[in-house]
Amino acid sequence: MAQEIERKFLVKDKSYRHSAFRSYVIRQGYICAERGRTVRVRIRDGKGFLTVKGPSNPSGTSRYEWERELPLPEAEELMMLCLPGVIDKVRYLVECGTHVFEVDEFHGDNEGLVVAEVELRSEDEAFGKPSFLGKEVTGERKYYNSSLMANPYKNW
Amino acid sequence: MAQEIERKFLVKDKSYRHSAFRSYVIRQGYICAERGRTVRVRIRDGKGFLTVKGPSNPSGTSRYEWERELPLPEAEELMMLCLPGVIDKVRYLVECGTHVFEVDEFHGDNEGLVVAEVELRSEDEAFGKPSFLGKEVTGERKYYNSSLMANPYKNW
Repeated sequence: MAQEIERKFLVKDKSYRHSAFRSYVIRQGYICAERGRTVRVRIRDGKGFLTVKGPSNPSGTSRYEWERELPLPEAEELMMLCLPGVIDKVRYLVECGTHVFEVDEFHGDNEGLVVAEVELRSEDEAFGKPSFLGKEVTGERKYYNSSLMANPYKNW
Repeated sequence: MAQEIERKFLVKDKSYRHSAFRSYVIRQGYICAERGRTVRVRIRDGKGFLTVKGPSNPSGTSRYEWERELPLPEAEELMMLCLPGVIDKVRYLVECGTHVFEVDEFHGDNEGLVVAEVELRSEDEAFGKPSFLGKEVTGERKYYNSSLMANPYKNW
């Protein structure tokens, strides 16, 4: 199980679309979504994944994460067991120096929300900021995908 | 994902111990344990398993189940994310006609509880009853392992 260290930002313009080197269509749901323990089913470009995440550290930058790829039919069946409120988004990958930013454009009930995340090797690792980055929202629970499921952006 | 069809009974004497052809030591915990959706981490004789179960049918005999074997170190890490109240038990396998009964002797906070389950191919499949079977408790929620975690036998 890896420790996932991430920082998350709002996105203030659409320039990421032109600078992205790849994009994915993602659909994901949650079998459970409690504080400190989430189980996620994701289908990304026709591949299935099951992911278990543990509790965050106090700053919200770091979480335990376990992930396993699944055959697509199994992921589709597990998706049917998920809590109501499946998340649909398109993820753009944008390089900035030695880091890759994942920019998530949400659709459905979260249409209009765009957030960018960067994965770090340590909590204090420096990284360059692409011009589209806005306010930092690392650790703000309402931006967790597992929170967007129950309280989507359209209700904010 | 398979449909798991099972019936569950209390056990009224210890004769299963002599007729068992195999036994396992089992330790299991739950990452989530809600009605209709449980995620279980199990370590059985040094092997790890992750299991997702869906909702039961109204009689409690049948549930969706998805299971995957895991490397032991991953199962041990996922066990640390589980809800409080890990279940320890010894499972005895006893043949009766063409069926195998799984007899679970619980330990720790569930010491004294012994239940037997038989897996069926259909809800109305006939099966022979070994002499140690007592009252049927199929579908009684308090005997679910996921319920024993929060409300163990010692508190009944």
